[in-house]
Amino acid sequence: MIEKRLNVLRRELQDSKIDAIVIPLCDPHNSEYMADHWKKLQWISGFTGSAGTVVVTPDHAGLWSDSRYFIKGQKELEGTPFVFHKMGLVDKSTPLRWLIDHIVEGATVAMTADMWTQKQVEGYRDSLAEKDIRVSTEHDLISTIWEEDRPALPVEQLFIHDIKYACTSIDDKLSLIRQKMEAKGVAWHLITTLDDIAWTLNLRGRDVEFNPVFLAYLIVGHTESRLYIQDEKLTPEVIQHLSNANVVMKPYDEIDPDVAALTEPTLVNAADCNHALFSCLPAGVVQRGKTIPRWLKAVKTAGEIGHIANAMVKDGVALVHAFMWLEDHLGRQDITEADFVDQLAHFRSQQEGYYGESFSAIVGYNGNASSPHYRPLHGQSAQIQPSGILLCDSGGQYMDGTTDITRVIALSTPTDEIKRAYTLVLKGHISLDRARFPVGTTGGQLDVYARQPLWQHGMDFGHGTGHGVGYFLCVHEPPQGYAPGRTSRAMTALEPGMFSSNEPGYYETGQYGIRIENLVVVEEDDKEGFLKHRNLTLFPIDTTLIDRSLMTSIEIEWLNDYHSRVFAELSPHLEEVPKAWLASKCARF
Amino acid sequence: MIEKRLNVLRRELQDSKIDAIVIPLCDPHNSEYMADHWKKLQWISGFTGSAGTVVVTPDHAGLWSDSRYFIKGQKELEGTPFVFHKMGLVDKSTPLRWLIDHIVEGATVAMTADMWTQKQVEGYRDSLAEKDIRVSTEHDLISTIWEEDRPALPVEQLFIHDIKYACTSIDDKLSLIRQKMEAKGVAWHLITTLDDIAWTLNLRGRDVEFNPVFLAYLIVGHTESRLYIQDEKLTPEVIQHLSNANVVMKPYDEIDPDVAALTEPTLVNAADCNHALFSCLPAGVVQRGKTIPRWLKAVKTAGEIGHIANAMVKDGVALVHAFMWLEDHLGRQDITEADFVDQLAHFRSQQEGYYGESFSAIVGYNGNASSPHYRPLHGQSAQIQPSGILLCDSGGQYMDGTTDITRVIALSTPTDEIKRAYTLVLKGHISLDRARFPVGTTGGQLDVYARQPLWQHGMDFGHGTGHGVGYFLCVHEPPQGYAPGRTSRAMTALEPGMFSSNEPGYYETGQYGIRIENLVVVEEDDKEGFLKHRNLTLFPIDTTLIDRSLMTSIEIEWLNDYHSRVFAELSPHLEEVPKAWLASKCARF
Repeated sequence: MIEKRLNVLRRELQDSKIDAIVIPLCDPHNSEYMADHWKKLQWISGFTGSAGTVVVTPDHAGLWSDSRYFIKGQKELEGTPFVFHKMGLVDKSTPLRWLIDHIVEGATVAMTADMWTQKQVEGYRDSLAEKDIRVSTEHDLISTIWEEDRPALPVEQLFIHDIKYACTSIDDKLSLIRQKMEAKGVAWHLITTLDDIAWTLNLRGRDVEFNPVFLAYLIVGHTESRLYIQDEKLTPEVIQHLSNANVVMKPYDEIDPDVAALTEPTLVNAADCNHALFSCLPAGVVQRGKTIPRWLKAVKTAGEIGHIANAMVKDGVALVHAFMWLEDHLGRQDITEADFVDQLAHFRSQQEGYYGESFSAIVGYNGNASSPHYRPLHGQSAQIQPSGILLCDSGGQYMDGTTDITRVIALSTPTDEIKRAYTLVLKGHISLDRARFPVGTTGGQLDVYARQPLWQHGMDFGHGTGHGVGYFLCVHEPPQGYAPGRTSRAMTALEPGMFSSNEPGYYETGQYGIRIENLVVVEEDDKEGFLKHRNLTLFPIDTTLIDRSLMTSIEIEWLNDYHSRVFAELSPHLEEVPKAWLASKCARF
Repeated sequence: MIEKRLNVLRRELQDSKIDAIVIPLCDPHNSEYMADHWKKLQWISGFTGSAGTVVVTPDHAGLWSDSRYFIKGQKELEGTPFVFHKMGLVDKSTPLRWLIDHIVEGATVAMTADMWTQKQVEGYRDSLAEKDIRVSTEHDLISTIWEEDRPALPVEQLFIHDIKYACTSIDDKLSLIRQKMEAKGVAWHLITTLDDIAWTLNLRGRDVEFNPVFLAYLIVGHTESRLYIQDEKLTPEVIQHLSNANVVMKPYDEIDPDVAALTEPTLVNAADCNHALFSCLPAGVVQRGKTIPRWLKAVKTAGEIGHIANAMVKDGVALVHAFMWLEDHLGRQDITEADFVDQLAHFRSQQEGYYGESFSAIVGYNGNASSPHYRPLHGQSAQIQPSGILLCDSGGQYMDGTTDITRVIALSTPTDEIKRAYTLVLKGHISLDRARFPVGTTGGQLDVYARQPLWQHGMDFGHGTGHGVGYFLCVHEPPQGYAPGRTSRAMTALEPGMFSSNEPGYYETGQYGIRIENLVVVEEDDKEGFLKHRNLTLFPIDTTLIDRSLMTSIEIEWLNDYHSRVFAELSPHLEEVPKAWLASKCARF
């Protein structure tokens, strides 16, 4: 199948006089998760990971992805003509580098205009120009050949995120955006990122799996705003809600001509806006800059944090039931990893305000967990046996918050090696959680807090330490987080109200995977000019996996304090049996 | 005096139709320390710090400097028309920002072409262009008005850095440079930085205080190289040494026409090359890139590290004698900070291969040490009393290495506050020293190792944690080090052989200053893919200032191991009395 599609694509390349095509894992809104309609990379390569880039030439078909997908990606590409290329934190292998090294001077590389951001196209153009390679954005070759069975654009109806949860009205949000627009001297702000549009308008949708967003473009003006959206998605309530805020609704595909007609300074983020749309903007009106709601929504309000704390109680209660269920049934009936994914969703769904999973849960038994983004599927996932360890990374979408938690539990007496790795990961987790740091500190500076205990033992993990988390929105929400390098997560200074995951890990390929994840919010410290973290996630950390000799008294105190708080906050919502179960898990260490 | 000079400058501004002039603390070689001839900023403002920028307009005279000079700078500008502007790690105040905010559209700002790097001029041009402000590089107004008493260019003779110490011959160094040039496809490499020229040619000079460099430009070609230098500096031995390596000597001021005549690709670092010289290069030949010897010399060879280790023994022995002298004489005779600076230099000068101080020693008694770059001068420096604490930051230039060490000693029973601060600084020092980290880790990632213990107590320090150190060259040597932000020190990945200081501190304005500094070299760790530090500095750390309750057992073990090594390495070179003194300072803690 893959080989056949590839042959058709190569014929198209030849007919269009294209020497190479680069295909991103993206949609026109620079989304991480996207509607099936835009899963071109998956269609052509068979790769199902959440990050990757494909390059196809007449004699090479390659897929680049990062360490999260080294195992999964190679497995998925087996038996296809695609070669897996490892992108590393240190290793400099990238699709662009490969093109420069392998494509002849004077060649043409195709990039589909609406699938790449303006900045990405500029980056490829500049780098390839040095070798006199031309970038062509005129073609959409995958759309040409992917006709049969291509999913249509989703047309699910929107719903209003109740002000009771949203806390800030659409009028107030628009007014905050307009204040920033005024400071920048722009008349319009073109917003192309789906979560920023959903946040601004207090609307949610069902167009994308796990992320409650909807396909749209938004242009905010001084008094009026314009939402470009498929008509079928609008209910009478939503139309009323938008009209009240002076938001005019227009068809999704009218954005191009409307943008072309703008005559006043327009703020747009070239790192998010797709090249096709960006090219419609008259050059004279373009003012490049950050997308304003991205930075506004990153700082959660006190009201939102209060709601999130409540969602965390519900999430913790659901997990108590799910892990109790596992303990009760393990060894008595067949349970696969996929079965436990279902149980996690089942117990979460019993909580008030539950909307769905916040991402595809990772339940990895022993060696399966060594792939940090393992996704167990029914019919393909392992049986969980009462021995070894189990990693569970899952989360829920509630009207009052988005959760994301990872725990590893022992299913039998753990080995010393696993205890050591688990303890070092836990020490890193505690170190980042306990961090106090001056205003201006970035996530790149704090990232090493979580790595230091592992590094001291010559160990490391190949992913960032934490990502921003949305509020009943995307579980991965830029800009902030904790990560090395020159990414937005590394370079963004942390501010009070920023909400992110803290999830160091350790992985031994094919043997085991460990990760301990809580969500933390940045708060002001008692000492002026300093900040600290407050952990909001509530579920016990398995102490039977800890090597006590590696723990300091401060770390043990942290753990006992945390467990006291978990018990105090969850137990009022539990019947006697689960309460006793939780008490035993939260016992003094 | 300052006011008079300023008035003359303002008349010149008016006559030349210039609205503002920006004056850097620099020479045409982007040097940190420079010959007196180029100390224009000091001449016009009276400021004697090592980092700063002056802006003069018809109605404002401002000097910008960083936190090291907040105290000293404000004191020095007192009574002059100059206003001190604080540049902070967080605070965004910069001369450029000030110009944008205060200079009217259409105005002209003067930057003297040979005092600013190409990149600095481009940065100012781009930023000021947004407000339609023009940058003029045609004038050299300070040279016009600074006629009387301006020191001439130095003409001291060069000397050869004996191959016994240099370890790598000039031929081998040129060949290493040529290999890198070939990989970059350039025919010429224009080198403008003085330490890179001195390193490449195994020559040293006396043109600049503390740094054994000489004024010159170097162009390396495939077979021939050209050194532009004042003829008076060349001895017959040096001429022979250079001729043997096919290095042609030409007058210092012939660099401009020669560079203008280049016709083949030429590698040049726009961040180091001054704008005047850069402008001479034909645009078609310019290939921007890093200065090759800067990266070669940053990685010290095994031979160099062996010599440095030997220099450290001599330095430690000298310090034993100096600090013993202080203990013996304190309270019995008047001793000022400046007197102790002299004693440090005196005892170092008795060591073999001593050449001079590596920087102006900082001996700060109590509150004086709260200015991290305090420079005690005879007639102005404080009396050291037998109470409180004393900070001593000093270093020597030896033929076999450059040293830089800071110790704080108690002169009486310390307060709890000082013990706490000292212990937290020491914990940070030990944490960075003990760090193990994967290949690819940058100084920006490790910088927080030294800050973490202070941060946890709501404390911090306003300077980087460490700088690269040259080999019988500049005590501040780029590119690597340990520092926050987006500087070269923060962004450079550490490599085995890189040699830097580890010097966290803590300062309470007017009360006390603490800093503990050793020099460390990066080495390969036993675990493949990991690196670690080896500390080369040998002198005891005052344990009477430590609050033991804040120390972990690992930290205490580190301290005892360090003191064992200090005693083992220094004691064979000491007579009985100093040996006993050292034994008591190195006693088990």
